[in-house]
Amino acid sequence: MHMHIREYLEQKREAVDRFLESVIPDATTQPTTLHESIRYSLFAGGKRVRPILTIAAAEAVGGTAPTLAKTVLPIASSLELIHTYSLIHDDLPAMDNDDYRRGKLTNHKVYGEAMAILAGDALLTLAFELCSRRDLVDGLAPARQVQLIYELAVGSGNLGMVGGQVLDIQAENKDIDLVTLQNIHKHKTGMLIRAAVRMGAIVADAAPEQLDRLTGYAEDIGLAFQIADDVLNVTGTREELGKNANTDAQRGKKTYPTFYGVEGAKALADQVRDRAIAHLDGFGPSADPLRELAKYITARKN
Amino acid sequence: MHMHIREYLEQKREAVDRFLESVIPDATTQPTTLHESIRYSLFAGGKRVRPILTIAAAEAVGGTAPTLAKTVLPIASSLELIHTYSLIHDDLPAMDNDDYRRGKLTNHKVYGEAMAILAGDALLTLAFELCSRRDLVDGLAPARQVQLIYELAVGSGNLGMVGGQVLDIQAENKDIDLVTLQNIHKHKTGMLIRAAVRMGAIVADAAPEQLDRLTGYAEDIGLAFQIADDVLNVTGTREELGKNANTDAQRGKKTYPTFYGVEGAKALADQVRDRAIAHLDGFGPSADPLRELAKYITARKN
Repeated sequence: MHMHIREYLEQKREAVDRFLESVIPDATTQPTTLHESIRYSLFAGGKRVRPILTIAAAEAVGGTAPTLAKTVLPIASSLELIHTYSLIHDDLPAMDNDDYRRGKLTNHKVYGEAMAILAGDALLTLAFELCSRRDLVDGLAPARQVQLIYELAVGSGNLGMVGGQVLDIQAENKDIDLVTLQNIHKHKTGMLIRAAVRMGAIVADAAPEQLDRLTGYAEDIGLAFQIADDVLNVTGTREELGKNANTDAQRGKKTYPTFYGVEGAKALADQVRDRAIAHLDGFGPSADPLRELAKYITARKN
Repeated sequence: MHMHIREYLEQKREAVDRFLESVIPDATTQPTTLHESIRYSLFAGGKRVRPILTIAAAEAVGGTAPTLAKTVLPIASSLELIHTYSLIHDDLPAMDNDDYRRGKLTNHKVYGEAMAILAGDALLTLAFELCSRRDLVDGLAPARQVQLIYELAVGSGNLGMVGGQVLDIQAENKDIDLVTLQNIHKHKTGMLIRAAVRMGAIVADAAPEQLDRLTGYAEDIGLAFQIADDVLNVTGTREELGKNANTDAQRGKKTYPTFYGVEGAKALADQVRDRAIAHLDGFGPSADPLRELAKYITARKN
């Protein structure tokens, strides 16, 4: 690919941020505190990995035509709204009870628990509002749009991300085995990443075989991402992470390093990353951003 | 109408319950505690007022053809999923901190706060999953389905129900005026009732003028419902309500009886109810259930 991955990420991150800035009510909209609280967490320096995966999957299938680039933005951005709501709710005292996130106080530390719960609920709902707007997705067939909304719901709901969060909570301080660990991550982080990639493919009218290959890619990078995240929790510093380091071990949480050691887990992440990239064999250079994203995800420092 | 309203309500409530029973995963589905918690609140004896409004609005426009009756059920039931999630989150310690609901312990008292937050998140997501399933809505145009999902999101989100909940929390122990009170209720309960009626009309392919009239009806019964609810909080017993009585006054909450007195509030509810029914003047006997529902809502004891 001509463009370096960091440049690609930066350009897409800016596009997503600009788009979100334009559709999320500003902090003068009533109820002002709700919108302030939503914006506090949504514009907290997130890397927009999920929306960028959606965009890159759409490009892999449909190329970089301006109409596709415009139509994919609301769909891609909806994934960031889901991701942000999940972080706000996960950080609550009744859940992970975290005070810091991305180097900033968590939402409930600033706005209180009630507002944090409601900001999460509002973001979750806004994701579906965004995906169901007709004015933003010129040329997208309504049947495709319904399919996208269904993918988003399945990826983020009771059998997807929320289900994974439940499994994660239930596993705390328990002596879980590797299969259980894999099942937690498959749902907690894997299903939303899977939805992100599939939604990009669907926006671009992927053929069934393309959708299958991209789904395989998504499942593998989801796994690689989680293994790398577990490693980072052990090896990263507070400064790199923007939150306290080594929290998993302190909470008695089993992670990939628990089973494989830090070096073993790193090697496994690389192996799964290569398998992810192999799924893209049938795609040409239009899938280069997806290939680079697989490498970026396993090499990141925060 | 030939059928008495109580019989109508009972028949539709059973149809909604049977439908929900068939689509919500049972308590043996992993994660089992999540599904148990979802079912605990969803099947807690709710009267299914919102889904029944959707069904009755569809009938007012499109009659009682079996295909319409089948297609409207998932759309109608999605409103009960939203309503149930909002009750679970509202009852949380950080919000209203209620121990009882419909005569049963609230969700977090049984399953803990973390599970209650996640059960609410899952129900909210399931509402959109249900609305985006193609296999359940034979004959519904995809463009109509997208429109329904948009209505649901707008009615329940930051400028709808969630926004109203924020306004309500902010008003606690404050000396609010009548305009503020109306604004709270318009959003907190009104917008979802409005969405319920409009979604029924849209499923049945309502003409723009029919949709306008039904929207006027919905806004008025939403208001009448809230006034009646405030009156009930003062006059109802713990047995009738299934939860503690007179809680608004104890919390220093301003309500319609605060401004109009109990008798004045009752008279106002009747007046708004009559105005709601007047919106239905262009409709024939197919709108009789909506007319009866307006009366039922202001006369109920729980």
